[in-house]
Amino acid sequence: MKKQEMTRELCQRSGRCIQRCMGIDSLNGLSVVTKEIDEATGSNYYERFTKYLKWFQENDLIGNAAQTDVKGDRSLRPHQQADLDLYLRVVERREDGIVVRGAKAHNSIAAYADELLVFPTRAMTSEEGDWAVAFAIPADAEGVYLISVPHIHKTRKELKAPITEYGTMHAFTVFDNVFVPWDRVFMNGEHKFAGRLASLFALYHRHSYTGCKPALTDVLMGTAAVVADYSGLGKVSHVRDKLADMIAVAELVYAAGIASAVKGKKASSGTMIPNTIYANVGRYHAGVKIYHEYETLADLAGGLAATLPLEGDFLNPVTGKLLEKYMKRKADVPSEYVHRAYRLVENLIASSTGAAAGISGVHGGGSPIMEKIAIMANYDLESKKRLARTLAGIPEKVGK
Amino acid sequence: MKKQEMTRELCQRSGRCIQRCMGIDSLNGLSVVTKEIDEATGSNYYERFTKYLKWFQENDLIGNAAQTDVKGDRSLRPHQQADLDLYLRVVERREDGIVVRGAKAHNSIAAYADELLVFPTRAMTSEEGDWAVAFAIPADAEGVYLISVPHIHKTRKELKAPITEYGTMHAFTVFDNVFVPWDRVFMNGEHKFAGRLASLFALYHRHSYTGCKPALTDVLMGTAAVVADYSGLGKVSHVRDKLADMIAVAELVYAAGIASAVKGKKASSGTMIPNTIYANVGRYHAGVKIYHEYETLADLAGGLAATLPLEGDFLNPVTGKLLEKYMKRKADVPSEYVHRAYRLVENLIASSTGAAAGISGVHGGGSPIMEKIAIMANYDLESKKRLARTLAGIPEKVGK
Amino acid sequence: MKKQEMTRELCQRSGRCIQRCMGIDSLNGLSVVTKEIDEATGSNYYERFTKYLKWFQENDLIGNAAQTDVKGDRSLRPHQQADLDLYLRVVERREDGIVVRGAKAHNSIAAYADELLVFPTRAMTSEEGDWAVAFAIPADAEGVYLISVPHIHKTRKELKAPITEYGTMHAFTVFDNVFVPWDRVFMNGEHKFAGRLASLFALYHRHSYTGCKPALTDVLMGTAAVVADYSGLGKVSHVRDKLADMIAVAELVYAAGIASAVKGKKASSGTMIPNTIYANVGRYHAGVKIYHEYETLADLAGGLAATLPLEGDFLNPVTGKLLEKYMKRKADVPSEYVHRAYRLVENLIASSTGAAAGISGVHGGGSPIMEKIAIMANYDLESKKRLARTLAGIPEKVGK
Amino acid sequence: MKKQEMTRELCQRSGRCIQRCMGIDSLNGLSVVTKEIDEATGSNYYERFTKYLKWFQENDLIGNAAQTDVKGDRSLRPHQQADLDLYLRVVERREDGIVVRGAKAHNSIAAYADELLVFPTRAMTSEEGDWAVAFAIPADAEGVYLISVPHIHKTRKELKAPITEYGTMHAFTVFDNVFVPWDRVFMNGEHKFAGRLASLFALYHRHSYTGCKPALTDVLMGTAAVVADYSGLGKVSHVRDKLADMIAVAELVYAAGIASAVKGKKASSGTMIPNTIYANVGRYHAGVKIYHEYETLADLAGGLAATLPLEGDFLNPVTGKLLEKYMKRKADVPSEYVHRAYRLVENLIASSTGAAAGISGVHGGGSPIMEKIAIMANYDLESKKRLARTLAGIPEKVGK
Ligand SMILES: Cc1cc2nc3c(=O)[nH]c(=O)nc-3n(C[C@H](O)[C@H](O)[C@H](O)COP(=O)(O)OP(=O)(O)OC[C@H]3O[C@@H](n4cnc5c(N)ncnc54)[C@H](O)[C@@H]3O)c2cc1C
Ligand SMILES: Cc1cc2nc3c(=O)[nH]c(=O)nc-3n(C[C@H](O)[C@H](O)[C@H](O)COP(=O)(O)OP(=O)(O)OC[C@H]3O[C@@H](n4cnc5c(N)ncnc54)[C@H](O)[C@@H]3O)c2cc1C
Ligand SMILES: Cc1cc2nc3c(=O)[nH]c(=O)nc-3n(C[C@H](O)[C@H](O)[C@H](O)COP(=O)(O)OP(=O)(O)OC[C@H]3O[C@@H](n4cnc5c(N)ncnc54)[C@H](O)[C@@H]3O)c2cc1C
Ligand SMILES: Cc1cc2nc3c(=O)[nH]c(=O)nc-3n(C[C@H](O)[C@H](O)[C@H](O)COP(=O)(O)OP(=O)(O)OC[C@H]3O[C@@H](n4cnc5c(N)ncnc54)[C@H](O)[C@@H]3O)c2cc1C
Repeated sequence: MKKQEMTRELCQRSGRCIQRCMGIDSLNGLSVVTKEIDEATGSNYYERFTKYLKWFQENDLIGNAAQTDVKGDRSLRPHQQADLDLYLRVVERREDGIVVRGAKAHNSIAAYADELLVFPTRAMTSEEGDWAVAFAIPADAEGVYLISVPHIHKTRKELKAPITEYGTMHAFTVFDNVFVPWDRVFMNGEHKFAGRLASLFALYHRHSYTGCKPALTDVLMGTAAVVADYSGLGKVSHVRDKLADMIAVAELVYAAGIASAVKGKKASSGTMIPNTIYANVGRYHAGVKIYHEYETLADLAGGLAATLPLEGDFLNPVTGKLLEKYMKRKADVPSEYVHRAYRLVENLIASSTGAAAGISGVHGGGSPIMEKIAIMANYDLESKKRLARTLAGIPEKVGK
Repeated sequence: MKKQEMTRELCQRSGRCIQRCMGIDSLNGLSVVTKEIDEATGSNYYERFTKYLKWFQENDLIGNAAQTDVKGDRSLRPHQQADLDLYLRVVERREDGIVVRGAKAHNSIAAYADELLVFPTRAMTSEEGDWAVAFAIPADAEGVYLISVPHIHKTRKELKAPITEYGTMHAFTVFDNVFVPWDRVFMNGEHKFAGRLASLFALYHRHSYTGCKPALTDVLMGTAAVVADYSGLGKVSHVRDKLADMIAVAELVYAAGIASAVKGKKASSGTMIPNTIYANVGRYHAGVKIYHEYETLADLAGGLAATLPLEGDFLNPVTGKLLEKYMKRKADVPSEYVHRAYRLVENLIASSTGAAAGISGVHGGGSPIMEKIAIMANYDLESKKRLARTLAGIPEKVGK
Repeated sequence: MKKQEMTRELCQRSGRCIQRCMGIDSLNGLSVVTKEIDEATGSNYYERFTKYLKWFQENDLIGNAAQTDVKGDRSLRPHQQADLDLYLRVVERREDGIVVRGAKAHNSIAAYADELLVFPTRAMTSEEGDWAVAFAIPADAEGVYLISVPHIHKTRKELKAPITEYGTMHAFTVFDNVFVPWDRVFMNGEHKFAGRLASLFALYHRHSYTGCKPALTDVLMGTAAVVADYSGLGKVSHVRDKLADMIAVAELVYAAGIASAVKGKKASSGTMIPNTIYANVGRYHAGVKIYHEYETLADLAGGLAATLPLEGDFLNPVTGKLLEKYMKRKADVPSEYVHRAYRLVENLIASSTGAAAGISGVHGGGSPIMEKIAIMANYDLESKKRLARTLAGIPEKVGK
Repeated sequence: MKKQEMTRELCQRSGRCIQRCMGIDSLNGLSVVTKEIDEATGSNYYERFTKYLKWFQENDLIGNAAQTDVKGDRSLRPHQQADLDLYLRVVERREDGIVVRGAKAHNSIAAYADELLVFPTRAMTSEEGDWAVAFAIPADAEGVYLISVPHIHKTRKELKAPITEYGTMHAFTVFDNVFVPWDRVFMNGEHKFAGRLASLFALYHRHSYTGCKPALTDVLMGTAAVVADYSGLGKVSHVRDKLADMIAVAELVYAAGIASAVKGKKASSGTMIPNTIYANVGRYHAGVKIYHEYETLADLAGGLAATLPLEGDFLNPVTGKLLEKYMKRKADVPSEYVHRAYRLVENLIASSTGAAAGISGVHGGGSPIMEKIAIMANYDLESKKRLARTLAGIPEKVGK
């Protein structure tokens, strides 16, 4: 099983981001932690969870991960906020289940997911049991408000292209006293495991990113290469240099994903856990490079990326003919191809959707600073210090 | 006069980009080069130009600089293109003037300027006399097509703010056999001066950029500082570190502008010419840093930059109340302020207008690579090599 | 076998650079290419090579890779140089073997290796058969001059430490009409395979680098962490941030090595070939980051890295006591430890040996630009362009 | 006077670092602050100082700035250190003067300066009056120990060159109960002015750096250009690109110095004070770029930078002739020139002196992080926030 899992993980990486990873990553995280809680406390979350999972798979559902709390004043912990609901929490424990209140931000695909998988965004202290809660809820449950933000490309009249066919939607999800029955509750006050679940989901999700981010780079790099070709610049030294840099980003991130899978370990529940360090350095590298990738495409595409005439002017018989003539670049490339290629450039880096994707490239799955925190928390820095002390001839202190 | 000019230059820098620099930069360039052509060839362009300038100033007109040709295949020179019109050129010389054909791209403000000031985008060889042409033409002259691309922020229903009040518009300007009378022609075949005029305008314009780009950084930096404050992060070490980096960008660019003005020289016509090296290193630094500035604002603002709910949801009584509650950050900052601040963030970095401004930050006034070309063409690298050879004890070759 | 090889590769990576990789990498390269030449031309190099290999292994020899030619004017090809010997070549073909002339630069460990493994530094054209030569030669053969450059740390009188115990030595190796008998010749004019062998060795060697470079980073990072601890800065936010950056470099490079091994393929001779793209992006990343790692250690260590008093002053009874007092940092760390830690810092980044290691970090195994060339030569960029064209709705040209 | 000062400042920048700036910068700082203390407290330090200055100038002395304390545990303030002497302090106040104890680190040129100018390294609190002390002392006064660290290039036997003729020396200066008579004491407990003096010296010194750092870049850039020429790479695109980057660094830093001088202000004592922001962004930029400049030279020079054969091998008749042959690059450049150029490269980036200069490029005059602190302390960030709030339509809070 180890092996298959690993293989699956590896294969899965080759595809495009397919908006399903969040659900799977959440379920993976829950499969590990519910077991661990049971082992520590004698509860039976794991059984509850596997029942839920079976139902979920049988119905081939799509799940959204609702982790990120709105967080109010970032310098204060959950229980220190002026309004205690700024992190989602249990406000009532009833015989048949719990009632929760709070809001989860930036929930991708929530608007068209079947199920919301809700869990903590950070580690919790002993005062914060009410915030240590995980559960699943149908997206249309009572008290759930999905305030949606669509990211869709400008509709085109005639110049249809696959890129405009797909869009995405994020939700600001409010839980206004929502009831959750027991069979859907997977953590309820076990504050010690809040951080474990938060970071495990993050780990699975960052590992997913080592697959989907290279795919985004592929699109940016391919587009950059195409417009450079059309401009007659395909062989120019600085152009090739910049494309090589994009390749290096894509493949380092992807390699980190491979290493993370190869060096993964099995949890007590049997689920494979990818290696933390590699998944985090991979996601980190993708996050700190995304704006530079946008910059490279902007650089190679030139000013037209920002000032492409409107589709209507191409359709207008007078201006259309003039644009046809003056949009021409390499003699053997039809002007329409140039137009289409720049429309794609516009979609990718000069539209609101493209701009939001850049921001998502920074923060989705956790901002770069969070990966650094995860790295520092898990890295064996002590052994590296020991190495240095040995080379320097400094004795290890006894008992240290 | 030297002094006043310099002072004016310096003061002018402190304001915001006011969409007038292009006209002034073009006129400055023409005032220098028309004189130089006269001195070299005995022509009388300078008189013609000063007459035009007087009329321009008396009527307080706004001018657009139409320099950038569409350029077709970038690996070929103007006279090598499959379609000779891909760089604008003289197609007929008549008794009363000239007829020109071609297209100029990315012409900011052209759509609402009074006059277009047209001149070459690069140096021309002796075969390229027809492309060595400079002239002024009313924006609504016959045969001139202004195909416009508006950059305007989404209109807001209630949440009015100064940022949305201003927009900009670029034109793809086609000259379809346009007649220009002699008194508006300022270069006509003097190919040796095409490069001089092209790079002089670029110089004035890049110097203008050392004033307006810091202003854009100011806005990005101020916004980043405000959202960090609202999130309770105003004093956090990495936040201050990133703000200091933004300051360093703004003030290095600005300092380069000051140095360029201080080290400027007077042309034979009496017009001051800013120092080439400083203006170019300043513009260059701004150009290579703009995406990083966007990244910093995205980083400090967090995911909400990309997923801010729609204005309508704030106005809706049910969701509006929920958003009011959950948009809250620092206890003493009203939610509406947070909303307004993030709406500004959205306008700056998550809207199509903001995204285009980033691209314009790279290419406007010439892409970074063009500043490097200008630097290498004008820098006294020989003296630095001499310095190295001297330190190494390598004798200078005689006669070199 | 595939598997064991892979495992070996992976394990091997965990150790320190042990100055044996060059020999192994060369032998690996030869084992693949001799077979390929045989297959193409009916020669029997592979048999010759395996005999040599057997003898080499039985005697447990150490081999040096002498690849890098001195190369003269870099803008000219081998056969265009004013002096044809600036790339090593065959100057005579005799009945019993060949005579070669030329020089190989920067040959690490050559001075104390048993055998020199010599092969081309680049692809050769059909005019360049004489330069397409590969052979093995004892390091003390007639006509071989090893002009050595030692890199050894300043000897210390009393403050002994492991770091100073090891050094390295590079040779500028001249082949002044050296005779090589046939049973040691592995390529002799097959110009089409010169590039293949050159890049295969490079590939194996860059893969080795994905193991040894992280080890160097480990030392730099460990040292930085130790001096930061001693200065009382171990928990400071910017310090941890910088350490996390070093970790990210080490582990991305290492991950690329893992991915390269996992995605390796078997050659016709049975030898495993690591994946080209991953090995190259890994080595590339290490090469472009090494100076930044030095910078980080310099940054965290402070000015004392450059101005550490001489060992003698510590031994002198008067100044020694004063230094003991004023070298003190954190109260519980003995001054001698601080002294030792800074002596290590000096060795690493403020000594000539350390400085040379930085340069070697850039160029050893091939400069960053060479990895980019390898990447661009092997990457399937076409498929990425196709991806972009598909998204843009641009039809693929038939027959392309 | 304003004007002359400014001019002097500007001119002075054009020369090389001449090891005199420290003294002048210290005296400038003292001239401002002694006056300010007098104004605030009625003391007469300024008169005392001007008398000292007159004597200093009449004797044309050289002064060293001894500012940097050894600082012990960096997480503790001066009065919190386990050993109170880890920041230099007054240990006795006598009728005829004061007695001080402590150590100042990294004192450039102290070993051959006439006078040490000693003052605080940071702001002091009210508990830290004893550490708020400034004075001048002859370098050979009783109780002063100058523990020196020489930075001199390897002596060459025959290949003499100016670069090896100059060296530098830093001292670890210990003040072991040193008596200072009143007429040489310029601050004595006025803790409120300790920070002012510390940062004023830093300001003057960083302004000096905007002159000397570009000179170092000039040398690195000139050397890179020379070795690229010799290798036949002078016109290669990536080489010119990298040289342009070095130029941009040098001239941005220099421009910042010009702007700082132009925007300087007059102190109450009449001394000109350069603008804080520009001096700091200039020094900052130099500090964060120095390692990258080393990297560029290493990159363009290739591996030979690290493995240049020893001078002795060039002098040896056998190996010398071989090296003569194989060191050859461009046909018209004598091998000796190549040798000399690479010897210079070695001195600059592959010697211990060169390596230390890199570290000094980071820390001398204050580490990058200190410039950021100075920037954040002096920048009008509030006005930028106001700008953002205005654009966002956020009202200013009354009374704020
Ligand atoms: C397009 C998109 C899709 C997303 N999809 C999902 C999803 O489906 N499900 C989900 O749960 N989440 C999702 N996320 C949320 C994502 O995980 C978060 O954006 C990310 O974790 C950052 O949180 P934040 O947006 O609240 O930013 P913030 O936490 O506000 O961070 C902004 C900045 O503040 C700094 N900062 C914050 N707190 C501190 C502190 N205490 N000390 C110092 N610095 C601090 C950060 O370093 C960062 O620089 C999505 C995000 C995006 C952009
Ligand atoms: C918002 C905006 C406003 C503008 N306003 C004006 C205006 O008012 N008036 C005006 O005249 N211009 C204006 N410009 C045009 C601006 O000056 C150009 O965008 C800029 O000069 C780059 O030219 P380009 O867009 O044709 O890009 P390109 O020339 O196509 O450059 C794209 C990329 O190709 C590379 N490249 C191009 N040619 C070569 C070559 N031969 N060899 C190697 N590499 C090459 C470049 O390095 C760059 O990386 C504006 C631009 C923008 C974005
Ligand atoms: C410490 C050390 C140990 C080494 N050990 C070995 C060893 O054991 N065996 C061995 O064979 N090699 C060894 N090498 C050599 C190493 O592989 C080379 O240094 C490396 O390949 C670069 O070659 P070079 O030094 O000749 O640099 P150069 O080729 O001179 O390169 C210098 C710069 O010039 C540029 N350049 C060069 N040619 C061109 C061109 N045609 N067009 C454009 N730009 C160009 C490069 O991009 C680079 O920026 C070692 C190197 C070092 C530093
Ligand atoms: C070649 C050379 C010549 C010099 N010449 C002179 C001279 O003539 N006169 C003179 O007075 N000085 C001189 N200096 C000293 C120079 O100003 C200092 O090196 C510089 O101020 C840094 O101080 P430090 O070396 O003690 O480093 P440290 O203060 O130890 O700094 C090392 C690192 O620790 C960090 N750090 C330190 N304290 C803190 C803290 N509290 N919180 C968080 N991070 C912290 C810093 O950011 C830095 O990254 C010279 C230095 C050099 C290298």
